[in-house]
Amino acid sequence: MEFCFDLILKEAWKYQALTLPNPAVGALILDKFGKILSLKAHKQAGKPHAEILALQEAYYKLSGDKSILSLEESKEIHKFLKENAKNIFKDCTLYVTLEPCLNEGKTPSCAKLLAELSIKEICIATQDVNKKARGGAEFLENLGMRVIKAWEIKELEGIHKKAKELLIPFARLQKKGAFVLFKYASRLNGSIDGGQISSPKMREFMHNLRSKVDSLLISGKTIREDNPILDVRFATLENKKNPDINILTRMQDFPKTAPLFSVPAREVNIISKVPEFKGFVFCEGGSEFFKTLKPYCDLLLVLITPKFSAEFQKIMQINADCKILHTQSIGEDLALWLQIIN
Amino acid sequence: MEFCFDLILKEAWKYQALTLPNPAVGALILDKFGKILSLKAHKQAGKPHAEILALQEAYYKLSGDKSILSLEESKEIHKFLKENAKNIFKDCTLYVTLEPCLNEGKTPSCAKLLAELSIKEICIATQDVNKKARGGAEFLENLGMRVIKAWEIKELEGIHKKAKELLIPFARLQKKGAFVLFKYASRLNGSIDGGQISSPKMREFMHNLRSKVDSLLISGKTIREDNPILDVRFATLENKKNPDINILTRMQDFPKTAPLFSVPAREVNIISKVPEFKGFVFCEGGSEFFKTLKPYCDLLLVLITPKFSAEFQKIMQINADCKILHTQSIGEDLALWLQIIN
Repeated sequence: MEFCFDLILKEAWKYQALTLPNPAVGALILDKFGKILSLKAHKQAGKPHAEILALQEAYYKLSGDKSILSLEESKEIHKFLKENAKNIFKDCTLYVTLEPCLNEGKTPSCAKLLAELSIKEICIATQDVNKKARGGAEFLENLGMRVIKAWEIKELEGIHKKAKELLIPFARLQKKGAFVLFKYASRLNGSIDGGQISSPKMREFMHNLRSKVDSLLISGKTIREDNPILDVRFATLENKKNPDINILTRMQDFPKTAPLFSVPAREVNIISKVPEFKGFVFCEGGSEFFKTLKPYCDLLLVLITPKFSAEFQKIMQINADCKILHTQSIGEDLALWLQIIN
Repeated sequence: MEFCFDLILKEAWKYQALTLPNPAVGALILDKFGKILSLKAHKQAGKPHAEILALQEAYYKLSGDKSILSLEESKEIHKFLKENAKNIFKDCTLYVTLEPCLNEGKTPSCAKLLAELSIKEICIATQDVNKKARGGAEFLENLGMRVIKAWEIKELEGIHKKAKELLIPFARLQKKGAFVLFKYASRLNGSIDGGQISSPKMREFMHNLRSKVDSLLISGKTIREDNPILDVRFATLENKKNPDINILTRMQDFPKTAPLFSVPAREVNIISKVPEFKGFVFCEGGSEFFKTLKPYCDLLLVLITPKFSAEFQKIMQINADCKILHTQSIGEDLALWLQIIN
């Protein structure tokens, strides 16, 4: 059981923050013999939820009917399953990191679909914090369905905790209207200077993440020293957009002709104090900038490339104790998601 | 199929180098429905091989007979299975990272046991490089058993490569009589100074590893600057032994009363040039020492603790391009196994 929960948590982390304003969610389906039929994650707001993707693949595995795989819209998959999958899942178990949504949002209710499909057992790692969507577990239980809730089971305490950690970006956005993520890239020996550090795959990942933010916050010093473009040219996701930028600076001592100003469809604001954070805010910068923003940061994202260069010696000179929430291989590099403890 | 191979590779890495002079090996067993019955790794030379541990647990799952779980010696488990498990595995599939051993070494032949148990299918990620033990796959095929060899299947190229990477310590030991591992510990920002860095769980891991080495190689500078004890007091493995130490130094400018000299049952040699490496050699030190040893290093082990301290700024000032072979969470920290590419 823990093993299945671990798998879906790991799958969900692959799309962490890319799903915002939706939560990152993972799901899998076991057949009656305990074999994994599908393992899926929610990828982007507006796209099918993890449960629906897992049901889609599992339906194909159980029925051999490929036609369901061509459906991309959540509504279409819901409709198809309601029409064609009445009994096929009756001995199956669904694992999902988050309580299935009860409400009809951009996509139909997952909880209601699960009820219609009479899935044998539904194992949930944590509750929804969203007032609109929550209640799915209770709804299913009230219908007499078998629901395993990790938060009520002593042995699954660890899983419940991990599932809550996975939800941090979403929960912060829900609770305080903002999720603030500070990111920096370094070599394995910690050096952050000397221009481009990350591998091409990591750059793609970064640009995808950047294309999802509501705004980017950088310092004047970053422009002065690195002069980055901060666009999303390597992003591969649909609907990519160059992020708007807030430049936090007291002195305004950077060239107003820097390349980031000429990126199309972007708004650039110059601000003199830490702003009211709103939405998904992505902060990129060095030691001084981190010190300023540390009290506001929800998570820290460190990208490590497995290289050493004796030439570069500038490191993050900051004080912080962190907890590693997740480690992810991306291309040759490593992405570490960290919670700042102290 | 790839999924199962990935699981056993990951399981095997948990005991990387701890198994020397044996290879790190992982194995799992699926029942006839494709459900995972067991997932195990070889833990220590002389202890049961991964396949045997996987069979032991799977036998219990299939038969409900707990008595097999109390057996610890490989010979006992072999005997028990031969006597009691003639038909129980006939619809099962075994996944294993390395060709099952054909020879009778410290433990009986795994290949011969598998043949007697008539396992339906045996999926192997890579071949054995040990002249004595190899031939298990061919032996099983010649008996008409179904053997899937990842090295002959285009789609499993990646798995085969990963399985060979897992074998590097063992293969080096086999081929050149030595496996040289360089290790250092740092904070997340790369700083390596300021005394104890790793978390308690990581110290335990390190001491376990140290207790398995044939010798430790350090520099005079390490004694001068860090004055470590380099014992195995936190090790939890059986038969732990304080490692013998070679101190590479030209100047001999360190106190001969340093604590490491007073550790019981230890030999300490002072040497003036890089030695002939023999057995599992563990090198611990900083930048200068790494530069000297880089041409001899088979792998690099970097231990990262998720902390930052502005006070400490000494980093590994070296040049190297690496490939991350494996990332492992240990306590709050991270262990990175790296191959030095350049």
